[in-house]
Amino acid sequence: MATRPLGGVLAPIAALFGPDGELDLEKYAKNVEWYANSPLDGIVVMGSNGESALLDEDEKLRLIDTAVTTVNGRKLVLAGTGVESTRATIRLTRAAAELGADFALVVTPHYYRPRYDAEAYKRHYYAVADASPIPIVVYIMTAYTGVDLPASVVSMLARHPNIVGVKDSAGNAVKFAEMVAGTDDDFAVLAGSANFLYPALCLGAKGGILALADVAPAACVELRDLYEAGDHEAARRAQLNLLAPNAAVTTRFGIAGLKAAMEMIGLETGDPRPPLLPATDAERAEIQRIFEQAGLLARV
Amino acid sequence: MATRPLGGVLAPIAALFGPDGELDLEKYAKNVEWYANSPLDGIVVMGSNGESALLDEDEKLRLIDTAVTTVNGRKLVLAGTGVESTRATIRLTRAAAELGADFALVVTPHYYRPRYDAEAYKRHYYAVADASPIPIVVYIMTAYTGVDLPASVVSMLARHPNIVGVKDSAGNAVKFAEMVAGTDDDFAVLAGSANFLYPALCLGAKGGILALADVAPAACVELRDLYEAGDHEAARRAQLNLLAPNAAVTTRFGIAGLKAAMEMIGLETGDPRPPLLPATDAERAEIQRIFEQAGLLARV
Amino acid sequence: MATRPLGGVLAPIAALFGPDGELDLEKYAKNVEWYANSPLDGIVVMGSNGESALLDEDEKLRLIDTAVTTVNGRKLVLAGTGVESTRATIRLTRAAAELGADFALVVTPHYYRPRYDAEAYKRHYYAVADASPIPIVVYIMTAYTGVDLPASVVSMLARHPNIVGVKDSAGNAVKFAEMVAGTDDDFAVLAGSANFLYPALCLGAKGGILALADVAPAACVELRDLYEAGDHEAARRAQLNLLAPNAAVTTRFGIAGLKAAMEMIGLETGDPRPPLLPATDAERAEIQRIFEQAGLLARV
Amino acid sequence: MATRPLGGVLAPIAALFGPDGELDLEKYAKNVEWYANSPLDGIVVMGSNGESALLDEDEKLRLIDTAVTTVNGRKLVLAGTGVESTRATIRLTRAAAELGADFALVVTPHYYRPRYDAEAYKRHYYAVADASPIPIVVYIMTAYTGVDLPASVVSMLARHPNIVGVKDSAGNAVKFAEMVAGTDDDFAVLAGSANFLYPALCLGAKGGILALADVAPAACVELRDLYEAGDHEAARRAQLNLLAPNAAVTTRFGIAGLKAAMEMIGLETGDPRPPLLPATDAERAEIQRIFEQAGLLARV
Repeated sequence: MATRPLGGVLAPIAALFGPDGELDLEKYAKNVEWYANSPLDGIVVMGSNGESALLDEDEKLRLIDTAVTTVNGRKLVLAGTGVESTRATIRLTRAAAELGADFALVVTPHYYRPRYDAEAYKRHYYAVADASPIPIVVYIMTAYTGVDLPASVVSMLARHPNIVGVKDSAGNAVKFAEMVAGTDDDFAVLAGSANFLYPALCLGAKGGILALADVAPAACVELRDLYEAGDHEAARRAQLNLLAPNAAVTTRFGIAGLKAAMEMIGLETGDPRPPLLPATDAERAEIQRIFEQAGLLARV
Repeated sequence: MATRPLGGVLAPIAALFGPDGELDLEKYAKNVEWYANSPLDGIVVMGSNGESALLDEDEKLRLIDTAVTTVNGRKLVLAGTGVESTRATIRLTRAAAELGADFALVVTPHYYRPRYDAEAYKRHYYAVADASPIPIVVYIMTAYTGVDLPASVVSMLARHPNIVGVKDSAGNAVKFAEMVAGTDDDFAVLAGSANFLYPALCLGAKGGILALADVAPAACVELRDLYEAGDHEAARRAQLNLLAPNAAVTTRFGIAGLKAAMEMIGLETGDPRPPLLPATDAERAEIQRIFEQAGLLARV
Repeated sequence: MATRPLGGVLAPIAALFGPDGELDLEKYAKNVEWYANSPLDGIVVMGSNGESALLDEDEKLRLIDTAVTTVNGRKLVLAGTGVESTRATIRLTRAAAELGADFALVVTPHYYRPRYDAEAYKRHYYAVADASPIPIVVYIMTAYTGVDLPASVVSMLARHPNIVGVKDSAGNAVKFAEMVAGTDDDFAVLAGSANFLYPALCLGAKGGILALADVAPAACVELRDLYEAGDHEAARRAQLNLLAPNAAVTTRFGIAGLKAAMEMIGLETGDPRPPLLPATDAERAEIQRIFEQAGLLARV
Repeated sequence: MATRPLGGVLAPIAALFGPDGELDLEKYAKNVEWYANSPLDGIVVMGSNGESALLDEDEKLRLIDTAVTTVNGRKLVLAGTGVESTRATIRLTRAAAELGADFALVVTPHYYRPRYDAEAYKRHYYAVADASPIPIVVYIMTAYTGVDLPASVVSMLARHPNIVGVKDSAGNAVKFAEMVAGTDDDFAVLAGSANFLYPALCLGAKGGILALADVAPAACVELRDLYEAGDHEAARRAQLNLLAPNAAVTTRFGIAGLKAAMEMIGLETGDPRPPLLPATDAERAEIQRIFEQAGLLARV
């Protein structure tokens, strides 16, 4: 059991590679140390923004180990352990627990998605939750997986005592309302992107896992704090201010944009792994302009 | 110019047909009279729920005439005047203005949508707005048209002085935030369905055009009032309570479900026009159950 | 009953508008006369390429009248009579029959497509076929309507004695095989685009309704003749040669591209109706280049 | 270099697991031996039907080793070596070459597909082709990956001397024509499913990789032979006869259906790996009925 409940503002931190394309764990640890001293509630190792899909299994274990050791209990650590087969997902989830992760974030299997119905997802998530020493968070990332688990399936999964939350990266307000309405109060519905954090909180979300929090943790935490303080008009304005920088590090320029923004604020960074391409100079200039305009270029 | 600004809770009222399949304007006027005495801010004649796509042009004019005459200034009256060609849209919009409609709701042309780029939409809406004596509201109904005008195009359209609002029926929280951020404060962004009215208001929407308001106007207005009173927790709970009844009269059972619910509360009703099929007995029972459970079966 | 069976190479001819945006029936008749003297088997008045969606009902009747009168029995004349409501589709189909059209081409209703299941389509097409004095051809145009009637529904529709064929504009080879396998030999499965005419014929299609036949009727007929003569290798090469010009007048540049190509070969033409935009000069030059390279710029 | 050119009828054979969920290589070898004695031109180890996405990397190597050793030069052996990262794809492709595979079948990376443009795919495939001792076959499997490389990108990839073919599993006749038109004669365009093998061959495809060939190799080879003999009408009828059994082992019942059909004809089989579910009894009965009706239940 995690000592803290799931929720708050979490950063799905980036994997770091050296010029040879291999993991650079030393630089990775430096970034983790910075996040551990930030106002964030926690980090996610190997979310989609952590290039999970491009990492070997042994690399994943080294990243979890480095992150857990560095954080050393100061923040929540979620480990992305979902892969295509139930069997390998269980193996990786158990290893993450062994290494000290607080929660496992398990993306929906998707390759054979025309074959995966509600029953298949139930069996998969229940098998993983049964086998896992740490609580499971369901991860819905439709833009990458093509799978949009409906709220009714999320409700069904939430009935398992070891499935404690869901992250959904699409800003479908109706579905967020349905997920909150269809689960108990202690089940954590989490926004998967900062561009809809405020309306998600209004509907009952417990927080979010936000790529933007990788580069603007204070601004993301401030939005949550404004909401919690009941200052809705300020929260609304803060939300509108985050739209452009959030798009720059997600839908517009992706992981390459995120890594470019990391460099701008002084974090360790590097190129993403192929077939991902690095940001072009024109993209970097545009990202810089957007972050400056939003007042988010505070250096580390 | 409308004497009242665009906004608030509006009902896209149903068209009514007799057993012979022809318009029944007498029964239609009875319903309009009831809406005119309700707490609603206005009605929409010939939204999608008004079976606009199944009506002949002369039928549309008779519906507008009946609605405007019956309302007699007590509420806003919007007329759905968008059809595929710019030419016919202008003709119908002018006729609606002549008949006394306050605003024209103009759905995106869509049949040749692979050919309609931002420039084509700009020329279309500007031509209609230039030619129209009454203000234009852009209508985005992606589930039916396959067209999702991006927020950047909405911003461009909003620069025309005679284009005063947008209704979007998809509950994309990010896009609502972007539309609010990209338009002036006096431009009315409107929710197109009651299942995301609360988060839309939180983000800065001016109200909504809600099929659910056809059968539960008081509940929809109450949600808006709770929001305006700053009672966010009550508004949130009201929002969650409206999810199931809203789905029953929209995504789950469509216009047939809406007409079945109208019958349950004592409004005039009838079958939709083919190829729309009427609700089955099982669907009616399910709708009844849902409305009872939500406490929305108050009779007219 | 048509005196000739449905099949062969048919051209979905363009509507013509004058500088004032109104129909120019005189120029239209000139084009029809040219088609009537071509090797084509017939023409379609008001297919999608005939800007059916942008025409008023009375304009449609005048186009049918002009086409039937001009053709005067030399070719098959199909009239596009499908609109959204069953009621108006029947009215228009009866009028087309009265005016002398041989067949009615009835596009799938689509605005309320989330509500239209197989039963709704069956009732619609059976009602139209029951009421129509002329045989019905089902028209599937997924790119514009978002509706892809599955082969199983086509089989069901084909059981009605007055539904005699289907035009499908998507080049899904599996579905063409399924439609042929699921219907009787006298039911005409028709290719809806010249870029898959040859494989469609190989699978048992009876011909095609081809935008490219508006500007290159001889080349389209030659491909069919090569197939019928059993010269598969020549047919295959002819098919590959038609890919680029076909794309130029359909998926790449649409009706604007088609009208530009019509001008190049000397047919009467003009701008499409807004919101369709005319071809740019760059597009015209590209179309010219493509047609020259394919050897299709024979003048009228 | 493979001693035989790429082409003909190839079977993407199934992986086999014991009751404990682990690979059963002994049974796998028995099946391979049967395929090696069939009229097939070759087999694919770890196509999508070989549950590639559910296998660990070391399992993949053992399957390739077993297949190559068992086939022992009697047929072509293709190894599915595509994974998400360029780095791991190269590692696996080199290992497959080392183990004796003739070709590597490399599925499009897809997880970050909103970020993968033509340039990213070019760099990926060129890097793999540069590093690989054996020729590369591009694998487009849109139903599972959400990626549909356009014909123009296939043409660009085909210019690399070590990229020798493409398998596309969607039956888009236009795209097959475009791929043939856009590549040299010695580049092998392959059908990815038996339900459009005949039209693909008509358009110039060199053969196909067909799940149906796992359970009906003779029927698939016969269709190809009829085409090559110029007996188009018999080939067409053979194609129509294969539609239902092909759907049963692919789109309708998936890998579970394929394994059920394998059992029916006497091959070694077993359950697929979770989250794939095994076929239900009702599905098995339906598959049996379909194969009997098509005359395809010849026992091994």
